[in-house]
Amino acid sequence: MVVFNRMAVIGVGLIGGSLARILREKGAVKEVVGIGRGEENLKRGVELGVLDRYTTDAREGVAGADLVFVATPVCSIPKVVAEIAPFLAPGCIVTDGGSVKEFVVEACEPLMPEGTFFVGGHPIAGTEHSGVEASFSTLYQGKRCIVTPTAKTNAAALDKVVELWKIAGSSVPLMDPVQHDRVVAAISHLPHMVAYSLVNAVDGYDRFGGDLLSFSAGGFRDFTRIASSDPVMWRDIALTNRDAILEMMDFFSGYLETLRGLVAEGDGEGLRSFFLNSKEKRDAIL
Amino acid sequence: MVVFNRMAVIGVGLIGGSLARILREKGAVKEVVGIGRGEENLKRGVELGVLDRYTTDAREGVAGADLVFVATPVCSIPKVVAEIAPFLAPGCIVTDGGSVKEFVVEACEPLMPEGTFFVGGHPIAGTEHSGVEASFSTLYQGKRCIVTPTAKTNAAALDKVVELWKIAGSSVPLMDPVQHDRVVAAISHLPHMVAYSLVNAVDGYDRFGGDLLSFSAGGFRDFTRIASSDPVMWRDIALTNRDAILEMMDFFSGYLETLRGLVAEGDGEGLRSFFLNSKEKRDAIL
Repeated sequence: MVVFNRMAVIGVGLIGGSLARILREKGAVKEVVGIGRGEENLKRGVELGVLDRYTTDAREGVAGADLVFVATPVCSIPKVVAEIAPFLAPGCIVTDGGSVKEFVVEACEPLMPEGTFFVGGHPIAGTEHSGVEASFSTLYQGKRCIVTPTAKTNAAALDKVVELWKIAGSSVPLMDPVQHDRVVAAISHLPHMVAYSLVNAVDGYDRFGGDLLSFSAGGFRDFTRIASSDPVMWRDIALTNRDAILEMMDFFSGYLETLRGLVAEGDGEGLRSFFLNSKEKRDAIL
Repeated sequence: MVVFNRMAVIGVGLIGGSLARILREKGAVKEVVGIGRGEENLKRGVELGVLDRYTTDAREGVAGADLVFVATPVCSIPKVVAEIAPFLAPGCIVTDGGSVKEFVVEACEPLMPEGTFFVGGHPIAGTEHSGVEASFSTLYQGKRCIVTPTAKTNAAALDKVVELWKIAGSSVPLMDPVQHDRVVAAISHLPHMVAYSLVNAVDGYDRFGGDLLSFSAGGFRDFTRIASSDPVMWRDIALTNRDAILEMMDFFSGYLETLRGLVAEGDGEGLRSFFLNSKEKRDAIL
């Protein structure tokens, strides 16, 4: 099994904290250094046994680390990597947990000094909660972590990152960053754009005055749960995965337009078949 | 309290069975006659104590009833009412549980013989299950039942129908059928159209080959749960509430187009504010 002597985690929240917990539990890391801006959260990380120690100085924190996990908001990952790059030990592997990959990988690869390695990754896991307090060692169990090598990726570093995520309990598909961004745009970013638009539309409809949202029942609440997601995080995702999101929104709008046509024409057989295909595909992923 | 001597329930499933259960429990009906096509289900209704007796002949079943509850699929409600109308006892009140109201009320009102009364209603309640087996007396507790009188509705009959739903535990807003259809189009029909389109779009996207749906995580599954709903029921809803659904789809598309513009322009402040408004409105209905 791959073993790292010192893992630095930049951004010790649900994602970073949970990876540190499981790798420590499995003996895949000997020491974990937490790096962040919120000292209270970092102290709590030490109390909880997630971290051995912490610092608010990223340059100091990465010194001597052979593994750095950048688990900050996706917009800030290139900035963080630019800051720490000159302070990395030879042989150090830097990987991340950002949910957009072309933006991150394109920016980070050229920042890495000779003899250090960047490998992009995206664990598809999470809960509604955040902070180290919310982290737990089985977060990645049975999940997928997409790892996104490029032509420039060092093969040995890639193998180690893949092994780490397998140790954490995930399956690890490899994908080109551009393809990754379309996959997550389809299964995550598009649904969020749609849910946010839906709630705003229902809120904005006022033909009869009154508050339509007050009539919403369980189905609407479940359907729009993701429209309660963090606006700043989703602003960042929309800014960093723009092309893929636009592609998926346009693709989706084509289907919505098709359905609109079936409704307008009162095409019963077309409607049934449109709904049935969706039901069958949806039931297959239950 | 209003008390009916004989309630006929046409369509003894989750909706019809649950109303019969609670009205019997509360002593608001003395006898319940079940009417339907599936004899097994009706027999089970008697065994479960939901029904006193049953018949597969609607004309015979409504004889002597002072309350008829039509809980069949929405498309068939006018047909059912047309069939039973000549056999109704004087003073009989017919009400329904259909989820589209202009289509139902417009068709049924002119069918009623002098001295019998139609009042449209729509209990906003349900589960994934169907059949009398799935019915339970607290289904309507704490829910809303929208009752939709028109200028032609008899005031005394309206009062009794409102009281029935209050006895069942629901609050009972009154609404014009046209307004009702926009409200449910917004909070229920539009989300279904969107969810069905989304699953079909993600299923249909093949730029990179492979099966995008296999990468879906919990958020996508929750978001698309309603895309597993019964295709025939939703075909009927799309056929019977066409105008309202088209109005809502177009209204929604305007918001989606606005969001598309913000993404395309990389307008960070506009994106944050779009997402934040949605989050605040959504959190308020949690």
